[in-house]
Amino acid sequence: MSDLTITRVEAIPYRIPYRKPLKFASGEVVHADHVLVRVRTAGGLTGCADAPPRPFTYGETQRGIVAVIEDVFAEQTIGLDATERSRLHARLHRTVGNPAAKSAVDMAVWDVLGQAFGQPVTRLLGGYTDRMRVSHMLGFDTPTAMAHEACAMRDRYGITTFKIKVGRRPVELDVEVVRALRNTLGDKVELYIDGNRGWTASESARALRQLADVGLTLAEELNPADDVLGRRWLVEQCGVPFVADESATTPAEATRELLGGSATALSIKTARTGFTVSDEIRSLAEGLGVEVVMGNQIDGQLGTACTVAFGAAHRSTSARAGELSNFLDMSDDLLTEPLRIVGGELIAPTSPGIGVTVDMDKLAHYRIDS
Amino acid sequence: MSDLTITRVEAIPYRIPYRKPLKFASGEVVHADHVLVRVRTAGGLTGCADAPPRPFTYGETQRGIVAVIEDVFAEQTIGLDATERSRLHARLHRTVGNPAAKSAVDMAVWDVLGQAFGQPVTRLLGGYTDRMRVSHMLGFDTPTAMAHEACAMRDRYGITTFKIKVGRRPVELDVEVVRALRNTLGDKVELYIDGNRGWTASESARALRQLADVGLTLAEELNPADDVLGRRWLVEQCGVPFVADESATTPAEATRELLGGSATALSIKTARTGFTVSDEIRSLAEGLGVEVVMGNQIDGQLGTACTVAFGAAHRSTSARAGELSNFLDMSDDLLTEPLRIVGGELIAPTSPGIGVTVDMDKLAHYRIDS
Repeated sequence: MSDLTITRVEAIPYRIPYRKPLKFASGEVVHADHVLVRVRTAGGLTGCADAPPRPFTYGETQRGIVAVIEDVFAEQTIGLDATERSRLHARLHRTVGNPAAKSAVDMAVWDVLGQAFGQPVTRLLGGYTDRMRVSHMLGFDTPTAMAHEACAMRDRYGITTFKIKVGRRPVELDVEVVRALRNTLGDKVELYIDGNRGWTASESARALRQLADVGLTLAEELNPADDVLGRRWLVEQCGVPFVADESATTPAEATRELLGGSATALSIKTARTGFTVSDEIRSLAEGLGVEVVMGNQIDGQLGTACTVAFGAAHRSTSARAGELSNFLDMSDDLLTEPLRIVGGELIAPTSPGIGVTVDMDKLAHYRIDS
Repeated sequence: MSDLTITRVEAIPYRIPYRKPLKFASGEVVHADHVLVRVRTAGGLTGCADAPPRPFTYGETQRGIVAVIEDVFAEQTIGLDATERSRLHARLHRTVGNPAAKSAVDMAVWDVLGQAFGQPVTRLLGGYTDRMRVSHMLGFDTPTAMAHEACAMRDRYGITTFKIKVGRRPVELDVEVVRALRNTLGDKVELYIDGNRGWTASESARALRQLADVGLTLAEELNPADDVLGRRWLVEQCGVPFVADESATTPAEATRELLGGSATALSIKTARTGFTVSDEIRSLAEGLGVEVVMGNQIDGQLGTACTVAFGAAHRSTSARAGELSNFLDMSDDLLTEPLRIVGGELIAPTSPGIGVTVDMDKLAHYRIDS
């Protein structure tokens, strides 16, 4: 047994309230009901990562994540050396689905590796740059309230890229919001839209026509990918990259959606593909020649640290602003040192591993299993 | 509140040992660790259905099924009238994945409806015929042992259709088995193969070439559908219908696989698409013009009763023998009256509802939550 032999895998459910409920076409969340995954090694290292359950997007529940980690993944992981990443991957992926649970185990092991090698994972992953520009997500509200929030985020954090949640009916509700944002923020900010599958293909097409002069840069999951032919018809007429997010959560899904004409860009989220599979999807996207955007699974600070660590590691993943600001909506968090967005940017943690530390007192306070 | 208002949804985990472990390319199972789902109405009816967790096929665990039913589906179901099937469907399908959990809720509600209307569900579903021919699955073993089992099943139950599990390396291992079965059983039995994604595309192609003269009728999931281009290459050269099973578990997946050239037939399993979505997939398959086969999710007797009830209800689903004999491998079961395969056929239950009754003493004996 080497120092890097994995000896324990824990799944700790915890609950932290949001400042206010987050609303979008596929649902709303009031608390961050996540699972902290901890991997321990014989040599005394502890790796951590976060698993956010999203039943309406990926089918995982908080209790289900704990169950699959305790009942399936722990046994497959314990006894491996942390450097046997590819063997770990093969074992975890015998199980279908469970993306957040698998990803947290994967990233916790990378956290161990970074600590063992004395390197931040962002360097282990690629080391292209040390930071990402931040895109801020604007949830459903009135045009005035959303424009007000965008201005506040710009003024306070220097953020100039905004992802606008759309998908309400009638589509004019959201069209009006996008126009208000462009009018208020001017031509220098970047705006793009995310429908979370809320519209039909024809509603989406109508909205895109009405927004043709607003200068959007991306359109994401406007209608369900499962409306197979409707989605292809829509993507064919979309003048900006059409981002597959929840419809392309594995390399094979990404391949099918891209080759089938159901998407022309990919969102990568470390919360659902960890570091290992995110990097495979990055390579696939680069090879197939489509753009990527680093997305947010309503991550807390630990998840956000993972996203920026991965995103900064490569040119393609850091080319666009990353969706890195959802953690601002949480009333508290687990880390000893909070992440800070300054000048519209977030710097990838520079300490070994993922580069952040879980505060044991906070974890004790928020965990719900004891 | 009507008599058919749903008032309670229970998820009861239970464990029944198999007579011997079942082995195939995607894993092996030793116990039936299933979840019995019970739906109760204000008028005193109780509907039951079975949810078999298959983490390596669909990602569900036994505890995860209990969690998603208790934490998500129960709340969405309670208060609905059992006749509001389409509203129930819309609610359940807000959650992604979790096919066995959703299906069990769906079928338990159909069980209630059949009881309320005084009709067996097979009649409510379509009423095409009253029975199905049975196909028996042969798990990995030596050519001699598998031929012996096939003969025993033919002699004891009159079964003349056999699904042969393949996917071992080298492929000649399985080729030899198939040849031995044809030689032993003669030309009158129907033989087809199921790879459970065990082979690569090139191994599959080699096996198909070697078996070209054996007269197989179907080839199922020989290689992973996620090997997108490899699968298409394989399917293009396959001379018999190539069945998508675990790669086409929703109407949209079926559409993508069929239109993308990754399959030319579909397996329908009530354990993963219930009655409601199974019927949608049946309609889709008929509309697109591909054959279907009723599959088995290593079902016990309750699940098998659901499969034959659905399969007998329509011409397309009863045209081929259904995979209905896995329950024979269980050391015991939950029903008061066991299912019986006679003359190679299984008759769909004729009592109202799914048409079978759970034995409360057996459930008390095998449940593991109390």
